[in-house]
Amino acid sequence: MSKGITKRSEDYSQWYIDVVLKAELADYSPVKGCMVIRPNGYGIWERIQRNLDQMFKETGHVNAYFPMFIPESFMKKEAEHVEGFAPECAVVTHGGGKKLEEPLFIRPTSETIIWSTYKNWINSYRDLPILINQWANVCRWEMRTRLFLRTTEFLWQEGHTAHATFEDAEEEAFKMIQVYRRFAEEYMAMPVHVGKKTESEKFAGALHTYCIEAMMQDGKALQAGTSHHLGENFAKAFDVKFQDSDKELKYVYATSWGVSTRLVGGMIMTHSDDKGLVTPPRLAPLPVVIVPIYRNEEERSLVVNKAREITQEWDPLFFKIDDRDQYKPGFKFNEWELKGIPVRLEIGPRDVQQNAVVAVRRDTGEKKTLPVDGLLECMKQLLDDIQRNLYETARKRMDDATYTVDSYDEYKQRIEKGGFFRVFLDHRNPEVENILQHDTKSTIRCIPFDAPEEHGPCMITGKPCSYRVIAAQSY
Amino acid sequence: MSKGITKRSEDYSQWYIDVVLKAELADYSPVKGCMVIRPNGYGIWERIQRNLDQMFKETGHVNAYFPMFIPESFMKKEAEHVEGFAPECAVVTHGGGKKLEEPLFIRPTSETIIWSTYKNWINSYRDLPILINQWANVCRWEMRTRLFLRTTEFLWQEGHTAHATFEDAEEEAFKMIQVYRRFAEEYMAMPVHVGKKTESEKFAGALHTYCIEAMMQDGKALQAGTSHHLGENFAKAFDVKFQDSDKELKYVYATSWGVSTRLVGGMIMTHSDDKGLVTPPRLAPLPVVIVPIYRNEEERSLVVNKAREITQEWDPLFFKIDDRDQYKPGFKFNEWELKGIPVRLEIGPRDVQQNAVVAVRRDTGEKKTLPVDGLLECMKQLLDDIQRNLYETARKRMDDATYTVDSYDEYKQRIEKGGFFRVFLDHRNPEVENILQHDTKSTIRCIPFDAPEEHGPCMITGKPCSYRVIAAQSY
Repeated sequence: MSKGITKRSEDYSQWYIDVVLKAELADYSPVKGCMVIRPNGYGIWERIQRNLDQMFKETGHVNAYFPMFIPESFMKKEAEHVEGFAPECAVVTHGGGKKLEEPLFIRPTSETIIWSTYKNWINSYRDLPILINQWANVCRWEMRTRLFLRTTEFLWQEGHTAHATFEDAEEEAFKMIQVYRRFAEEYMAMPVHVGKKTESEKFAGALHTYCIEAMMQDGKALQAGTSHHLGENFAKAFDVKFQDSDKELKYVYATSWGVSTRLVGGMIMTHSDDKGLVTPPRLAPLPVVIVPIYRNEEERSLVVNKAREITQEWDPLFFKIDDRDQYKPGFKFNEWELKGIPVRLEIGPRDVQQNAVVAVRRDTGEKKTLPVDGLLECMKQLLDDIQRNLYETARKRMDDATYTVDSYDEYKQRIEKGGFFRVFLDHRNPEVENILQHDTKSTIRCIPFDAPEEHGPCMITGKPCSYRVIAAQSY
Repeated sequence: MSKGITKRSEDYSQWYIDVVLKAELADYSPVKGCMVIRPNGYGIWERIQRNLDQMFKETGHVNAYFPMFIPESFMKKEAEHVEGFAPECAVVTHGGGKKLEEPLFIRPTSETIIWSTYKNWINSYRDLPILINQWANVCRWEMRTRLFLRTTEFLWQEGHTAHATFEDAEEEAFKMIQVYRRFAEEYMAMPVHVGKKTESEKFAGALHTYCIEAMMQDGKALQAGTSHHLGENFAKAFDVKFQDSDKELKYVYATSWGVSTRLVGGMIMTHSDDKGLVTPPRLAPLPVVIVPIYRNEEERSLVVNKAREITQEWDPLFFKIDDRDQYKPGFKFNEWELKGIPVRLEIGPRDVQQNAVVAVRRDTGEKKTLPVDGLLECMKQLLDDIQRNLYETARKRMDDATYTVDSYDEYKQRIEKGGFFRVFLDHRNPEVENILQHDTKSTIRCIPFDAPEEHGPCMITGKPCSYRVIAAQSY
């Protein structure tokens, strides 16, 4: 039955847009490049927020909020940073009916406003570390936008920490990329490669950037989270020093790390299918929908009452009974499949007689008759199964499409069809990345943490390398 | 012992600023009129968010997110609305290095961007009601700002609902002001008057506005939440019609309602004292702090271990053991009083012997020795007691300072000292409010829902009135 969704095999990009729009996850907005996040999409973002927030708190972080406006002069204090971000900023020039003395940038990221504030909070080593996170909107003027994946305004969290030593900052940056990896795998059921960005791909103003890279179903990479060791760069730009226990004045070390509403796009492109959205149960705003099946008023009353009776003690946020009279069951099945509800329960008159229900999994479509006794427990197990299956399926897909290739000719031939390529590339030579990009529209996604020592010639320059990097086309 | 906090009796305004800064709730920012919400303040806002969000969901609402940018042309579509808000907007004129074709306003409130979107979502009566809430930052250019109470950028929630009939919208607007009342009373321990705003004080674009008005310790009113019945005004401005069950095309009715980080200011000014912040336990990020008391290493080990043993099973977010060696207990007592922790537990060597602790309430300063057995249960009761006491104290203060006055001369004399005044005023005559404002810097805060029928002459014009309104000076 058609839901007006383009098939993935026909046009993957159009399929993605169809899923986002028809599952009512987001909508275009009258403001160029911005999107409206609809309740179905925002419900997923809320679960991302809630679970990540708990992981941040368990690792000692607290939340705060800094102004969205950044004076132009602040942006200019860190040379690499301004070069990287100023061109994509939105600029406020008027406020309260008057021209401002100094234009205000809308934050594209908050290092500058935050470090100008940390200067007032840090005097002694006793004031360190500062472990702050912020949930906020940010704005980066984008030419080509795509719902969730790249929008002019987006929602994100940005951690900004301050440390006494290089080692402490390094530990933090590393710890947080591992938090992201764990979140991606355990909550989003989205396997990732974890590693370091090359010099040309790192954050503007960082010493180095760690990242998680996920593989979408078309074999393209999605950068899903980054964690930056900023060294003393922002402390120097904003003159933030502390008196150490040895009485010496030293610059403060910094990290920053973030994930955004882009994760919702990553989730969609990892799991969804030609019927519509597939949601990992741990991020599903509505895990279970119950569709009563009846042909007349008498049957309606029988099955709807049974559904109410069964769910009497269930958390109302866990399920919904779809007892709309104006739609037939087939229509409802379609709608809830499209919207990615992990489990559908069907109850007809015969099920009532047998004190059973039929459970249908969204991920596999498998149907199973389940006794009403112990149903809630059964549902929870089923949801766990679905979560596990989604992860394993995605893991297998990524592993199967991660290739080891040694010849640049072979690479150029195969890269078009997608996939991650474990290759020797001299990533310290920026020219290598330029050639790669120019020839193949692909980039080095990361230098994986778990890359074993392995020796071979850079497939472009022939220079000896001692490990392989991961290269791919990306979103 | 001085904590550098001005006494309320000396300078109430300065006292407020001292509490906000010294308790590290917020800080000034380098951007004029904006503030930094520090972790101690943001923790309170998080609890406000979490509890209100749950109340919104229990009343059928879902969250979504709309762009922060509003095209200039949208702002102009509702005549009253643009007149009320456009002058206080921040305006983005440049993006991505180029001048924009149409300037973008940063949302001062989101009716226009939301109703331009609802137009695409509403066709039939089956699409109604829409019950959406948004947590967001907004911007209103303010000349005179005050931390939390009035800042250029602030955080808030804004509900925007769409209904088929006037009655449905009216029910929603009324329901939500009651949700705010309940939240203020039960969570913030802040009693309020509930009522309707006069014509001149209503929201720009509303048919009418309901409000909750709290009394601060200086007797001034704080508008703490508003709920607007917008009628068909925004549907007409954005041409949003639906086909009703009778097949007729009709305009959609709207409400909007919001509270903001201003509530944190209201909480501070309702409960805090000359020692610093007082936090109602239900909003306290940290309900209990434990201060071990020792004179040497041996005692330290004894009491700190005991503290750890006692709290082994406690939720780590419920308490903190302050075992910093560099500070004396007296210093710590002061610090936690200043920061408004509801209960302090002291444990010294003698307490360990007696298997007891000393609990000190932040609200009354009362000390009590409590047995270690059943301590957690005891703590929870104590926190409930504190919550109740804070509410009752504030309630009594408000009731005691709510006066019934009939003569304008008496009003003019007494208004300077603060308080709410139940008075006859012909609020339908805008000139009356102008005179009141001019003579006394006070305004009609609300026409209370519970005002009994009562007849008397307007204290300014003498015109017969049939109920009393509440007038006061306000923040």
